[in-house]
Amino acid sequence: MENNQTEISELGEFGLIDRLTKDFPLKNPETKKGVGDDAAILSFGDKDVLVTTDLLLEGIHFDVRYVPLKHLGYKAAIVNFSDIYAMNGTPKQITVSIGVSSRFTVEHLDAIYSGIKLACEIYGVDLVGGDTSASATGLVISITCIGVAAPEDVVRRDGAKPTDIICVSGDLGAAFMGLQLLERENVVAAGQKNFQPDFAGKEYILERQLKPEARKDIIEMLRKEGIKPTSMMDVSDGLSSELLHICKDSDTGCRVYEDKIPIDYQTALMAEEFNMNLVTAAMNGGEDYELLFTVPLTDHEKIEKLKGVTMIGYITKPELGCAMVTRDGAEIPIKAQGWNAFNAQS
Amino acid sequence: MENNQTEISELGEFGLIDRLTKDFPLKNPETKKGVGDDAAILSFGDKDVLVTTDLLLEGIHFDVRYVPLKHLGYKAAIVNFSDIYAMNGTPKQITVSIGVSSRFTVEHLDAIYSGIKLACEIYGVDLVGGDTSASATGLVISITCIGVAAPEDVVRRDGAKPTDIICVSGDLGAAFMGLQLLERENVVAAGQKNFQPDFAGKEYILERQLKPEARKDIIEMLRKEGIKPTSMMDVSDGLSSELLHICKDSDTGCRVYEDKIPIDYQTALMAEEFNMNLVTAAMNGGEDYELLFTVPLTDHEKIEKLKGVTMIGYITKPELGCAMVTRDGAEIPIKAQGWNAFNAQS
Repeated sequence: MENNQTEISELGEFGLIDRLTKDFPLKNPETKKGVGDDAAILSFGDKDVLVTTDLLLEGIHFDVRYVPLKHLGYKAAIVNFSDIYAMNGTPKQITVSIGVSSRFTVEHLDAIYSGIKLACEIYGVDLVGGDTSASATGLVISITCIGVAAPEDVVRRDGAKPTDIICVSGDLGAAFMGLQLLERENVVAAGQKNFQPDFAGKEYILERQLKPEARKDIIEMLRKEGIKPTSMMDVSDGLSSELLHICKDSDTGCRVYEDKIPIDYQTALMAEEFNMNLVTAAMNGGEDYELLFTVPLTDHEKIEKLKGVTMIGYITKPELGCAMVTRDGAEIPIKAQGWNAFNAQS
Repeated sequence: MENNQTEISELGEFGLIDRLTKDFPLKNPETKKGVGDDAAILSFGDKDVLVTTDLLLEGIHFDVRYVPLKHLGYKAAIVNFSDIYAMNGTPKQITVSIGVSSRFTVEHLDAIYSGIKLACEIYGVDLVGGDTSASATGLVISITCIGVAAPEDVVRRDGAKPTDIICVSGDLGAAFMGLQLLERENVVAAGQKNFQPDFAGKEYILERQLKPEARKDIIEMLRKEGIKPTSMMDVSDGLSSELLHICKDSDTGCRVYEDKIPIDYQTALMAEEFNMNLVTAAMNGGEDYELLFTVPLTDHEKIEKLKGVTMIGYITKPELGCAMVTRDGAEIPIKAQGWNAFNAQS
């Protein structure tokens, strides 16, 4: 390292983003919200246009040795749709840029695009552009998704208020355990010809890792029930990390109850097999693509009736900080231990 | 190569894009034009929203040994702005995704972002989002730009008509010759400590390669003069390639005159030094980021008065094909020999 140079890992991903983007004042009235939410909010005419983008790099975000290319394409699209739903918007268009090294063939790309196509069909999204290029090294996938919402419908991260109920859709930690399983089997398989891993009884956690869905259904259900969250984001980096984002941006604290965190039994069994702490996996695993949101206390009864939504805690004043309440009533501060692509390289 | 597998280079970039995107029917009324122009055209309320994206990969699109990182950031933004201007729109927002390997420090990223910031300031564009990640290998920059236009102002590639005049802004071939120079000096410098290349008298071609501009000024001038092109695109892959795009999409042919192609004297001197064919460099070099457009014959006098715009030929019926008329009156068919990132890897 040269003199006066700072390792990127010293800042971490969010610190780095803050540093790189802080000197970019917004200049256009068409820009309502720039960096700092699941998607940017642009204003054109009477609509809010939402824009989000994700960069997926081979060897960092995925391993083609155990991720089928069709699934990779599907997931690459889904994670972007999820960001648009997390703003209470509807994804409409995507652009797909792909860089491929010479070990990939046209048929490999066909497989990736067949997954993207399936995702676009299911979620009603149009592919409208992109870029293709050779890559000197690995596979690169960069997707940008454009969504739309009525301005009054958009839900940001900064609207949570003390006494609001914290809700999460589905269950957490499964995608993380699926990844652990895939990595273990890949290690086991190394060098063994025709190795057939035994995935029986583990289908759910594998599917959560390899073929996640975006929670369009939850957004539709909330709308139907007349519930507008006060804040919302999707759980991509892990529940802990996302809770801290919402509380920081909303200037609040929070309490979540350990025994309320929704966890599937396959996730629990797998954690036991790996001798891992189950709650840690659920709080910090990431890649769940569930929706984390807050609603006013007055929506309690409405939420209680909703299938697939769990109330896990409540928002507090900022001075109370963010903590998890354990089964025995102790309070443990919540720290971001979410997945960090900059630590992954070391 | 496995059985029944197709090398990507067999299809070429445009063949590949066609194959990968042809099975994606557009589903949303908000999508007016998907793949196949400088930018996609989306319709939200009373505005057309334009979206374009570019993927830049180290070792394919740039070489950090001779491209200053600030210039790299500037150029990465500019090439996207250029695509929005080429639709007769105004760029408003960009998202920037960057993947960096561990040999890059925070200060390196600061330099890239300082270039992006400068471009955003000069062109009035907001940075609204992005993604940062570690990269297992080289530097990856993926930028998406969003622009806006009144629907009646948007200019596509498919509107050229026989007898239309073909115009191009600025001059061509300089960026290509600048690249040749940088690559030669880099070869010369290899292994020589404190080597100082002599770039005197070659500043223009270097600037065209390292710090291109988007032709906002041309768009504003055309608007002021009441000229709306019938078709337009920016010259990124080379004039030959772009002429063929316009003629294919408009179902026309064209004639361009060799002696009308605008070329700077530094480009000419450099071509001579390299013993390269000057017209070939100007027709196929690429990365000029000038605007190629067609106007009705009735705009002839208006165009004649414009500074920085050259009339290079005219549009014909499709059966006449696309040809360059040489100084001695011979017709040479125009073939796309534009820069192809998929040949670059071999």
